[in-house]
Amino acid sequence: MAKQTKSTKKTIKKKTTRKPVMKNAFYAMGGGVTPVINSSALGVIETCKKHGIKVYTGHFGIQGLLLEDMFDMSKETPKTLQGLRLRPGTAFGSCRYKLTDMKECAQDYERIIEVCKAHNIGYIFYNGGNDSADTTHKLAIYSKEAGYPLTCIGIPKTMDNDLPVMDNSPGYGSVAKFFATAALETGIDAAAMAPFTEIYIMETMGRHAGWLPAAAGLAKKKESDPPHLILCPEITFDQEKFLAKVKQSVDKFGYCHIVTSESLTDEKGNFIADTGQRDAFGHATKGCIAPILANMIRNKYNYSYHVSVVDYIQHSSRHLGCKTDLAQAYAVGKAAVEMAVAGKNDLIPIIVRKPGKKYQWEVKETKLTNIANTEKLLPRNFITKDGMGVTKKCLDYIRPLIQGEDFPPFKDGMPNYPELKLVKVPKKLKGEYKLR
Amino acid sequence: MAKQTKSTKKTIKKKTTRKPVMKNAFYAMGGGVTPVINSSALGVIETCKKHGIKVYTGHFGIQGLLLEDMFDMSKETPKTLQGLRLRPGTAFGSCRYKLTDMKECAQDYERIIEVCKAHNIGYIFYNGGNDSADTTHKLAIYSKEAGYPLTCIGIPKTMDNDLPVMDNSPGYGSVAKFFATAALETGIDAAAMAPFTEIYIMETMGRHAGWLPAAAGLAKKKESDPPHLILCPEITFDQEKFLAKVKQSVDKFGYCHIVTSESLTDEKGNFIADTGQRDAFGHATKGCIAPILANMIRNKYNYSYHVSVVDYIQHSSRHLGCKTDLAQAYAVGKAAVEMAVAGKNDLIPIIVRKPGKKYQWEVKETKLTNIANTEKLLPRNFITKDGMGVTKKCLDYIRPLIQGEDFPPFKDGMPNYPELKLVKVPKKLKGEYKLR
Repeated sequence: MAKQTKSTKKTIKKKTTRKPVMKNAFYAMGGGVTPVINSSALGVIETCKKHGIKVYTGHFGIQGLLLEDMFDMSKETPKTLQGLRLRPGTAFGSCRYKLTDMKECAQDYERIIEVCKAHNIGYIFYNGGNDSADTTHKLAIYSKEAGYPLTCIGIPKTMDNDLPVMDNSPGYGSVAKFFATAALETGIDAAAMAPFTEIYIMETMGRHAGWLPAAAGLAKKKESDPPHLILCPEITFDQEKFLAKVKQSVDKFGYCHIVTSESLTDEKGNFIADTGQRDAFGHATKGCIAPILANMIRNKYNYSYHVSVVDYIQHSSRHLGCKTDLAQAYAVGKAAVEMAVAGKNDLIPIIVRKPGKKYQWEVKETKLTNIANTEKLLPRNFITKDGMGVTKKCLDYIRPLIQGEDFPPFKDGMPNYPELKLVKVPKKLKGEYKLR
Repeated sequence: MAKQTKSTKKTIKKKTTRKPVMKNAFYAMGGGVTPVINSSALGVIETCKKHGIKVYTGHFGIQGLLLEDMFDMSKETPKTLQGLRLRPGTAFGSCRYKLTDMKECAQDYERIIEVCKAHNIGYIFYNGGNDSADTTHKLAIYSKEAGYPLTCIGIPKTMDNDLPVMDNSPGYGSVAKFFATAALETGIDAAAMAPFTEIYIMETMGRHAGWLPAAAGLAKKKESDPPHLILCPEITFDQEKFLAKVKQSVDKFGYCHIVTSESLTDEKGNFIADTGQRDAFGHATKGCIAPILANMIRNKYNYSYHVSVVDYIQHSSRHLGCKTDLAQAYAVGKAAVEMAVAGKNDLIPIIVRKPGKKYQWEVKETKLTNIANTEKLLPRNFITKDGMGVTKKCLDYIRPLIQGEDFPPFKDGMPNYPELKLVKVPKKLKGEYKLR
């Protein structure tokens, strides 16, 4: 009797809640990774689930869509999905594949529509930097023209913090926290070894913007504290002034602790560490600048030196989790889905700092075209007059972004980053697609 | 009434426990720092206090003794002393100043006796690696011959783990934990970017021994996991074999994650990254090897690459605190004082692994001459047959040493490393001493 009642109820419920067949969503990551990009994925997946939208994630970014190479997030358990909150890198792989002009690579655009149709994909969430915003925007335009309109929403991500319009990019807070910590810790070491190794140089990433080296400034409380020099790409490198300031620091404090961007340029705009090579987007690829600066110093003063080139370590150090950054990364993923479900298109959620003394943030939105292919540099008043340090204004901006710790669980002495199941979506199209 | 009784008791106690005027102790750190060397200092200071011995610490190692430049630990509070458990680097500064032959630098030895006499120093605790053990031993011999016998006890320290006789050196566990974690985290990044950046190389320190790159092997659970190559200085670098293995890895797994010691040598024994310069001890100083290997790979296969040169970051990362290492560092400091108080001399406490499946350790002792100027290399059966990986035997040895976490407190988004008071001991001698 009870069973029957239950069964009747179920049938009634089914009838009343039946919805039209929802389109599926495609989510992918583009460009360099951050320690928290997977949290944006989690925001997308959990919010989609709430709205009854199935999520397919691209294996190696947009390439996953072109190659029909996707993972089915409905096969993950709530527990395996929680791995996304913990894992650095990208759980599904990223890419540096750019959709260029629609006429130039029409085949790619056609293929994307074909794959989306085959898998009933109606939403595209592309999580990346300026290049990815450009790709997402182009897809919104093309799909409309092609008569299969896709809802295309970007999700901001870059440790470089160089995305315009928004107050900060998710990913930056974690890496800023890493550099503030690394500057503090290596600074203590450098001071301890000062009479024997006068120079220490730490090299950060960051293409044209100095947000990463700037964050190291948080380690400095008083003039004698390291870092003694912070070199940002916004300021043309002046070898003579640089060497003079290094000597001044050694004379005054016994040593000189330097944090430098990899991307310093000379007065002609050439990278100091240019290798002469170009990447897939035509961007110059650079070698390590720290040893070049160290050699300059040794040749002039014969000081002994140590250098760190941080590279992948800076954006993979999830063990030093940043609570604020994790929350913001999740929030933009969630907001992207809510915008899509509300019928919005060709947009990207952004982090906005509320006015007031106490740091508070909220998520708003802007057009993808406002983000695409534009870089936000350090304002001149964030850099000291002599061009080799950062100002209080700069540090006041960065400080709230690194707040809060979120250590991963440890197992057997190491962080325990759970693996996802990563079940592939069965292919529906015949033949192999060839990437450009 | 009760008060009086107490007062009487106090007077009696005072009378019965009056001791002869104790000699003071001098403690200093030598050579490169570790994330836990300050814990050994804490072990020394707290144990000396228990025995009524005052501790003076050397500003910049043994130089502090020569220059009569010391800090008075009796001026610290129990709270400021706890900073020693947390702070990376060395709280008092380290040095690379070596006492050579007693005839060669007789002046230094005479000066040390003079300073010790002036400050009633009867104990020397020198915390360092092989070079420091040598210095400590020489002081024991000289002071006896000079008629002012000093009790000289070494305290082992080196992240390189190359001190002989002992199972492991305090300092190694923390840096091994760092490299296991960094290999895991950068490995996740490298996998995510594989189709665009095939090669990632992480460079570790370590003069002649491969204990540091070996620790990165803990991140690898199955064959496809990074690191794919681990290059230790115990194996002569063979460019042809290396390049073949790199290609094999890229073909099989899509990328190649390499961890290399800075100190690889060719078949003639020359450092691959030799700069041609020598340090104060006559050791060759090397440049960065990771970019050299990366160029080799690019020239052959045109693979894209990223490199990290970890340097100071590896031995300053106290934020990733290792509980086992902290405990061992403290224990050897404590044991050194107990040995000295027991009338022992010219010795060094060592960490010994107890037999049995479950990892257990204890502190024993050995002669300083057993440690001085000898390096413990990776046994051949810790390295795979092809010379480019580590064996299960090796990982089973390292794993227990990285166990347990001890995060520092955080304040304002960064580790909060308390500062000591560092009150200088007033000078008693006239004139300035000139170092060699």
